[in-house]
Amino acid sequence: MNFASDNHYGASAQILAALAGIGQSPQAAYGDDDVTKRVKALFCEIFEREVAVFPVINGTTANALALATLVPPHGAVLCHAEAHIAVDECGAPEFFTHGAKLVPIEGDGAKLTVAALTAALAHFQKGFVHHAQPAAISLTQATELGTVYTPAEISAISAVARANDMKLHMDGARFANALVGLGCTPAELTWKCGVDVLSFGATKNGALAAEAVIFFMPKDARDFEYRRKKSGHLLSKMRFVSAQLEAYLADGHWLDNARRANLLAQRLAQGLAQVRHIEIAHPVSANAVFARMPSELAARLRRGGAKFYDWGAPSDGQVLARLMLSFATPEEDVARLIETARAG
Amino acid sequence: MNFASDNHYGASAQILAALAGIGQSPQAAYGDDDVTKRVKALFCEIFEREVAVFPVINGTTANALALATLVPPHGAVLCHAEAHIAVDECGAPEFFTHGAKLVPIEGDGAKLTVAALTAALAHFQKGFVHHAQPAAISLTQATELGTVYTPAEISAISAVARANDMKLHMDGARFANALVGLGCTPAELTWKCGVDVLSFGATKNGALAAEAVIFFMPKDARDFEYRRKKSGHLLSKMRFVSAQLEAYLADGHWLDNARRANLLAQRLAQGLAQVRHIEIAHPVSANAVFARMPSELAARLRRGGAKFYDWGAPSDGQVLARLMLSFATPEEDVARLIETARAG
Amino acid sequence: MNFASDNHYGASAQILAALAGIGQSPQAAYGDDDVTKRVKALFCEIFEREVAVFPVINGTTANALALATLVPPHGAVLCHAEAHIAVDECGAPEFFTHGAKLVPIEGDGAKLTVAALTAALAHFQKGFVHHAQPAAISLTQATELGTVYTPAEISAISAVARANDMKLHMDGARFANALVGLGCTPAELTWKCGVDVLSFGATKNGALAAEAVIFFMPKDARDFEYRRKKSGHLLSKMRFVSAQLEAYLADGHWLDNARRANLLAQRLAQGLAQVRHIEIAHPVSANAVFARMPSELAARLRRGGAKFYDWGAPSDGQVLARLMLSFATPEEDVARLIETARAG
Amino acid sequence: MNFASDNHYGASAQILAALAGIGQSPQAAYGDDDVTKRVKALFCEIFEREVAVFPVINGTTANALALATLVPPHGAVLCHAEAHIAVDECGAPEFFTHGAKLVPIEGDGAKLTVAALTAALAHFQKGFVHHAQPAAISLTQATELGTVYTPAEISAISAVARANDMKLHMDGARFANALVGLGCTPAELTWKCGVDVLSFGATKNGALAAEAVIFFMPKDARDFEYRRKKSGHLLSKMRFVSAQLEAYLADGHWLDNARRANLLAQRLAQGLAQVRHIEIAHPVSANAVFARMPSELAARLRRGGAKFYDWGAPSDGQVLARLMLSFATPEEDVARLIETARAG
Repeated sequence: MNFASDNHYGASAQILAALAGIGQSPQAAYGDDDVTKRVKALFCEIFEREVAVFPVINGTTANALALATLVPPHGAVLCHAEAHIAVDECGAPEFFTHGAKLVPIEGDGAKLTVAALTAALAHFQKGFVHHAQPAAISLTQATELGTVYTPAEISAISAVARANDMKLHMDGARFANALVGLGCTPAELTWKCGVDVLSFGATKNGALAAEAVIFFMPKDARDFEYRRKKSGHLLSKMRFVSAQLEAYLADGHWLDNARRANLLAQRLAQGLAQVRHIEIAHPVSANAVFARMPSELAARLRRGGAKFYDWGAPSDGQVLARLMLSFATPEEDVARLIETARAG
Repeated sequence: MNFASDNHYGASAQILAALAGIGQSPQAAYGDDDVTKRVKALFCEIFEREVAVFPVINGTTANALALATLVPPHGAVLCHAEAHIAVDECGAPEFFTHGAKLVPIEGDGAKLTVAALTAALAHFQKGFVHHAQPAAISLTQATELGTVYTPAEISAISAVARANDMKLHMDGARFANALVGLGCTPAELTWKCGVDVLSFGATKNGALAAEAVIFFMPKDARDFEYRRKKSGHLLSKMRFVSAQLEAYLADGHWLDNARRANLLAQRLAQGLAQVRHIEIAHPVSANAVFARMPSELAARLRRGGAKFYDWGAPSDGQVLARLMLSFATPEEDVARLIETARAG
Repeated sequence: MNFASDNHYGASAQILAALAGIGQSPQAAYGDDDVTKRVKALFCEIFEREVAVFPVINGTTANALALATLVPPHGAVLCHAEAHIAVDECGAPEFFTHGAKLVPIEGDGAKLTVAALTAALAHFQKGFVHHAQPAAISLTQATELGTVYTPAEISAISAVARANDMKLHMDGARFANALVGLGCTPAELTWKCGVDVLSFGATKNGALAAEAVIFFMPKDARDFEYRRKKSGHLLSKMRFVSAQLEAYLADGHWLDNARRANLLAQRLAQGLAQVRHIEIAHPVSANAVFARMPSELAARLRRGGAKFYDWGAPSDGQVLARLMLSFATPEEDVARLIETARAG
Repeated sequence: MNFASDNHYGASAQILAALAGIGQSPQAAYGDDDVTKRVKALFCEIFEREVAVFPVINGTTANALALATLVPPHGAVLCHAEAHIAVDECGAPEFFTHGAKLVPIEGDGAKLTVAALTAALAHFQKGFVHHAQPAAISLTQATELGTVYTPAEISAISAVARANDMKLHMDGARFANALVGLGCTPAELTWKCGVDVLSFGATKNGALAAEAVIFFMPKDARDFEYRRKKSGHLLSKMRFVSAQLEAYLADGHWLDNARRANLLAQRLAQGLAQVRHIEIAHPVSANAVFARMPSELAARLRRGGAKFYDWGAPSDGQVLARLMLSFATPEEDVARLIETARAG
């Protein structure tokens, strides 16, 4: 019963088969291969416009390279205080941007609001050489708490970005889960509501190690390729990353995987919500369930074989358990966890 | 007939099978998995001592992280002027080290000599705050020109490093080819002759994207893990990199692959050496053949379907063709290239 | 009537005379001169122990170099959200540390507390490679709001630092003002209560451009000299910086200057406190007065010739005026400002 | 008899008087003061065009900031192998540029030639992501060996820069000496022959700590101000730097100082050239004399009280003595050195 992280699961059969299909025959290196070309075309199709596409191996890299391309060393990135870029990347954005500043902002459900962004921006004076210069807003979709931003919310945040000459970045490590949860199109959830650059995740949703940085205005990509090379993220056999993305996007595989994970999350949340002493802490809009429960109940679940993380320290004898569902979580694990909880 | 690069070939069947074997079942993320543990043990066995092992995805990253761990921002790295780190990594070592200086040194066959190193070191005054401080020597094994360093040569270079409080790094993108070419053990070719840290390559010799940084004194590894994380090179599903390394090392697969490539290189060199107007420019000690030939002969080979790079600009109507052999180069391609050359 | 900043005033006659006294005769460059040696000895005397001393030209540099020496690129620095290093240095600490993270912490009077530090530290897991690693606490003495830390308060913060293997940095841009305000010795206010490194300010209190970084454990200084050189802060004619410090420390000049500024601050605060509608917002412990007043009153003061900054945006028709006093503020300016305020 | 460096001498009386003249009265900080404004206007006048002017404290900083403004982290700077930026700045250009690469090029008299630059550029493929991208050429005027570039030579180098989309930087730590030596105008020696940015030196020629970065196309300066602030080089009391520059430029003081130093260099060279066993190694075009002499003669000069550096290691019993003349070298020291040499 592994609910610790969606990145604990391996890779889907379709994606592994795609790798095997490449075999050992030669192709041009460093992304000048046919698979990578096809993947780029696929993304243009999916997003319904010309986009600049750069495959990379993971989300930290996608985020850090995207931000470094848009934010100068004297810049600042506004993000939620719980954002992965702020908390879980050991300063990768600072490294790639050569020292830009991340400005952590509080907000319910790990979500940025226009009000909170506006208040934060009031501390920075534009063109004042002593202040880091706000250059980007970064939001996570779905968020670290399994909530989502609606297109309308993103549009409103985008308006703040525009008004302050900032770019809007979306950390989409769980973009598919958000998309499926919201029921809109990739275009509606990104450039149509003002997103400039997307870290498009695949690893957590079925790939081995594959994400893509998508610039919706290709000229924004500027010197991305040099940054990717310099940071060791231009692979010689790039087609093995691209092949993961191709299989991921083919036949709606990515959406199927996300739908499955989201559905299990709904089922788990509904089951747990009916257990005495358990409270679901955040709206379940993607593939994460946050359940507040007594410490002893959490301990019992673990004794019963469940793996999951506590979110923050216990408080008043309660823990906030984070339960992640993935494309490959066995259905019976969900049923068994609910049962174990009930059996208290 | 692809002789352009050993990194143009895909991945071996054994290595692809290892990935498929992992499947989708869950495991701890970020390298705390069983495969990664087994690989670390394997490397200790192969090198006959306790070593610190860090899987990464490619050689640029292995080199840059190894150097950044050993060289401070005010340090200098002495290397050959044709070294991959100096020429082909777009400044990755400078990025990872936060600005250390690479000192390019000339030498025949892309090899460093004690004399050349000593002459270069004379330009730096130890403890003189105006000078970058030499902190490491980096040599490539096999070199960019397909030559190799003998253990005795490495020992002599290591003595220079020791005498100047410097560390010795080996870029082993083609370590297996050198090993097989020299007929010695991994230990004899590294720590027994004074190598401190090795970029152990697998990608060019059959893997998709897998190398390992090996510190022979584990305490030298210091803050390597933070640097790997910050640069986006700690993969969540690390076992997919480790599995490549495990399959690579199993049953002598790595040595078989290298032996095959080296053998084809010998065969190609011998065949071409007998063609009028072709001269083999460097000793063929690994899997590269450098053949000097008239430009029109090179053009004819290309018209015949051969892919390869010229090394440097043409001079006096001659080009220096670099012909790379790999674990997967078809034998018939070698025969056909020789035949095409002869048919002039 | 310039109350805008203590750095708006020029340099004291004693300090300017010291520069003139050096003249044009030759001396060894880069700090190997007699003046610099004397200054180092003076600091050892003043702090009653062997200290490592490095003259620099300003506070931003002193702070950034001190932190970069103690904090690795994957480290974090805990500081107040209003700290100069966090707000007013355009990311200099991030630049010099190669990307370390500043963690802004809220607290009354621009002061850090043990409780707030402990709460912030709870978000970082030691040795967890995904988290930046807290490596230093930085406090400002006197603070950006003109308040001060008592030795007891510093000791308590130092205990937090020790318990978490962190170093304690003091930004002493206004160290003399704090010292005079608290009436203790330099030793009592620094290493005796656990400060590891001090940015010792002189510029705001009478020098042209001179500060010193003081390490109380000389071995902590490690590679400071290389960092200072690489960042362009090792001056060839260093004795012109050292001479400022020598004159500053001679005959209690630094304490006299600070006493004068603090006394004027007391006088101004007492005068304004008696004006209707004016409220003194923070304890006046050094050379700053923060006075909350109606916007129209502030406007009137400005029309009367007073220069000062508002601290933050107006709120409810009130502004928070920051009034800085310096070693050279004319006494009559203080009297005139109070009078102008009263004349409303 | 100090011939060790022109930076060993102090500051001229005129420049020290200018500092005293500023006194303690208040002015706007960070360069928004009247002196700085006047200095900017002066530079426009002297260079006969609108230029962007940024005072800084020394040459390392001027060079590093100028290059960082023009060269991206993945860029390369071509310079002579003996250039100060390559040899004597402990990697400052690499630090400020965030890791750009300096490409050292050999050439007689520490001078770059079109042929050598062209040969070096042949190693870099434009737009090839694996190669650092040449972005600037840096030449030193006068050079580290006391030679100078004529306007015609600079024009030719500038044409190479233009043809390769590179910028041309001039390290003018001894710009005044070169100017006086060549007898041309500041405009003729810079933008009229294609220089884009100049590190304008004053420290070695009479100031305490003052240089200026001059961009001849003001828009090239881009984010210079943020870089200066982030690196700690924006002084609060900037007018004390500007005042040095103002006095330096007033009434031809800078040219008088340089003329004096150059004249003494001529006199010294002529005197030594007539001494048996002494050979003048490079044309004496500025304020440096390089004299090859037997080691025992050099030792005798030192015993006689002369201070100077050997340039490189002794060879065949000969040393290459570098003898620097300054605005303040006593005339009698020159006479005495010649006499001491003759007395052998």
